Amino acid sequence: MKKIKGGITAPNGFLQSAVNSGIKKKNLDLALIMSEKEAVCAGVFTTNAFKAAPVVVTKEQLDTKAHRAIIINSGNANCLTGKKGIVDAKAIISSLSSLIGCKPNQILICSTGIIGKRLPAARIKRALPSLAASMHKVNSHKAAKGIMTTDTFSKEIAYSFKVGKSLVRVAGIAKGAGMIQPNMATMISLITTDAKINKPLLQKALKDAVEDSFNNITVDGDMSTNDTVLVMANGLSGVKISSPSSYKRFVSALKALCLELSKMIVRDGEGATKFIEIEVKQAKTKADAKQVALAIANSNLFKAMCYGNDPNFGRVAAGCGAASVSVVPEEVDIYLNGKKAVKKGVACSDKLPSSIFKGKDIKVVVDLNSGKAQAKVYTSDLTPEYVKINAAYC
Amino acid sequence: MKKIKGGITAPNGFLQSAVNSGIKKKNLDLALIMSEKEAVCAGVFTTNAFKAAPVVVTKEQLDTKAHRAIIINSGNANCLTGKKGIVDAKAIISSLSSLIGCKPNQILICSTGIIGKRLPAARIKRALPSLAASMHKVNSHKAAKGIMTTDTFSKEIAYSFKVGKSLVRVAGIAKGAGMIQPNMATMISLITTDAKINKPLLQKALKDAVEDSFNNITVDGDMSTNDTVLVMANGLSGVKISSPSSYKRFVSALKALCLELSKMIVRDGEGATKFIEIEVKQAKTKADAKQVALAIANSNLFKAMCYGNDPNFGRVAAGCGAASVSVVPEEVDIYLNGKKAVKKGVACSDKLPSSIFKGKDIKVVVDLNSGKAQAKVYTSDLTPEYVKINAAYC
Repeated sequence: MKKIKGGITAPNGFLQSAVNSGIKKKNLDLALIMSEKEAVCAGVFTTNAFKAAPVVVTKEQLDTKAHRAIIINSGNANCLTGKKGIVDAKAIISSLSSLIGCKPNQILICSTGIIGKRLPAARIKRALPSLAASMHKVNSHKAAKGIMTTDTFSKEIAYSFKVGKSLVRVAGIAKGAGMIQPNMATMISLITTDAKINKPLLQKALKDAVEDSFNNITVDGDMSTNDTVLVMANGLSGVKISSPSSYKRFVSALKALCLELSKMIVRDGEGATKFIEIEVKQAKTKADAKQVALAIANSNLFKAMCYGNDPNFGRVAAGCGAASVSVVPEEVDIYLNGKKAVKKGVACSDKLPSSIFKGKDIKVVVDLNSGKAQAKVYTSDLTPEYVKINAAYC
Repeated sequence: MKKIKGGITAPNGFLQSAVNSGIKKKNLDLALIMSEKEAVCAGVFTTNAFKAAPVVVTKEQLDTKAHRAIIINSGNANCLTGKKGIVDAKAIISSLSSLIGCKPNQILICSTGIIGKRLPAARIKRALPSLAASMHKVNSHKAAKGIMTTDTFSKEIAYSFKVGKSLVRVAGIAKGAGMIQPNMATMISLITTDAKINKPLLQKALKDAVEDSFNNITVDGDMSTNDTVLVMANGLSGVKISSPSSYKRFVSALKALCLELSKMIVRDGEGATKFIEIEVKQAKTKADAKQVALAIANSNLFKAMCYGNDPNFGRVAAGCGAASVSVVPEEVDIYLNGKKAVKKGVACSDKLPSSIFKGKDIKVVVDLNSGKAQAKVYTSDLTPEYVKINAAYC
């Protein structure tokens, strides 16, 4: 597996474009990703009870066997918009379908941005002709920019991997950067691949990949109404993914891609100054390990101490013990950036020097010493800047 | 029921004192509450797997039929201290018992403060004689001050209520102010009463009272290792609580007391500028209502918007939908400070004026329109100051 250039259009037969449609004042706010031929699609979505209109529509549209395009707007989530929100999403799809020459049910739609505002559908529809006309194969990277909200950098990556002697490509873009938590990690990511794979297998691969990547990150423990990960596979590499070995290679590339995008989202967490990895080892089950890691990752006290370069292991222990998972304190070891802080439930020293947290990366290891399962979760620190950003979103 | 003066020693037969033992530089850090005669005690404790040594010891000590005193230190949690922590707590109890003339198993102990540091037991023991010698009946309010950590004001209140023609008194002190979340709301509260009540009934009353008060508040969703609520009932009012009507009066006074102390804790939430009440109405069950209210209350995005005077109802809906409770979005109404923001799952307007959040108090009502149960939860806003306080605790 190799990192390659070309971003979201690195896989054969994909085009992209993005324009400003007027949802935002100046920045790109409407992006299109299109496959030159029909592609099978799979998706995973937020589990929030309040689902945005585009989530409802796209989930329905996924019943179609093959798709051609995904349209995404930023700046407006089209959520809490009731039936009108559904009508707006469908109207945009319908206009786009005639412009790019496919059936309406072959287009998927995503929205991200503020909740509770009607989508300016007329304005978006007026922008569709220039969006369709400006599609590019290479190097524009515009789609990645077009889906940004409070992100400070665009998130795009592409890999190639070999099946036998043939190359397959997989690429993705993502947006963060707040409202990030597991169970669809509150973000949007769109993935393209030229692998030839059937729809059920693609869905399985996506689910597996997301479980170990996007669902393992948390910025603020908040679950969005719009979380969506979609993948389009158009088969144009000519390489069929069906044998166990080819599937294994495909899934591992997809996982690597999703994990890389996940980490980018965490690094761009709103106001973040630290990138934090929490590894829980020797748990009874993987689910237990993840739950403990998330309990620590979502503790505001823990996140604030990371910001303050304060290796206060007591907060790690408190987070661990609060995880609603059977933890035996007398067995637990805790390490902060490689330094043993707690041994068998007892502090190794009164205080660790703050110097061990000086760098940008913080690694916490919690060894439960009670099983063989493990999990890694990624998060960012809680900073005054996070509060300021979210105190004045609109 | 009437608010009365006298604080924690307002009930007949209670004494209090506090000194600086040297855990903190200057401030009071060691408090004692004592009953002139034997009292029955009840307690509820943190559910965190990592329990501090004083929690372990006090839970054991509660097996004793009658108690005389509670000793509390602030500045050190005596947690992650292993067997030595237990030994330290017991040594302090033992020294105190000979000074005040009771059996060691008649003393309960609490600690609050930093986790992972050995308790300076020798220093504390040296301070015990002056602590015991300076016990006062009235007006010192020192115990309430002695248990403070990052609290900015001491929390103390007393009520009297009538059973027949006789007066009964109940009083309490509490400390916050971070690491506050339900399932023993991460704090310490000590309650005295001169009611005459048996131990099982006192335990039941305390559990009921805590469930609707301390367990309904959250400052940061963090569950401490030291959460403890203890109540001592010495019977010196001569009024027996055993009939259903007397029990009802007692529980309602105890609830009112706990709720008042809970609200004080929230108002003193670390860095807090707002007092937020979240009421969830017409839920299927009380547990559902509470879960939805807590999901909103613990959302950093929601808490940050309260700080920023931004009535962004989308975040209330997102929090509500993330609650792992079956919510039917099409039925949900949301009100912010009396203003209807969402009707049947659809936003009433694009945006609410920020002026409706200008005051110090914010009230959110979520009407699920799907049952008859309700719950109220109290929280504070998330502020840059909260992060600063917790970035440099020690």
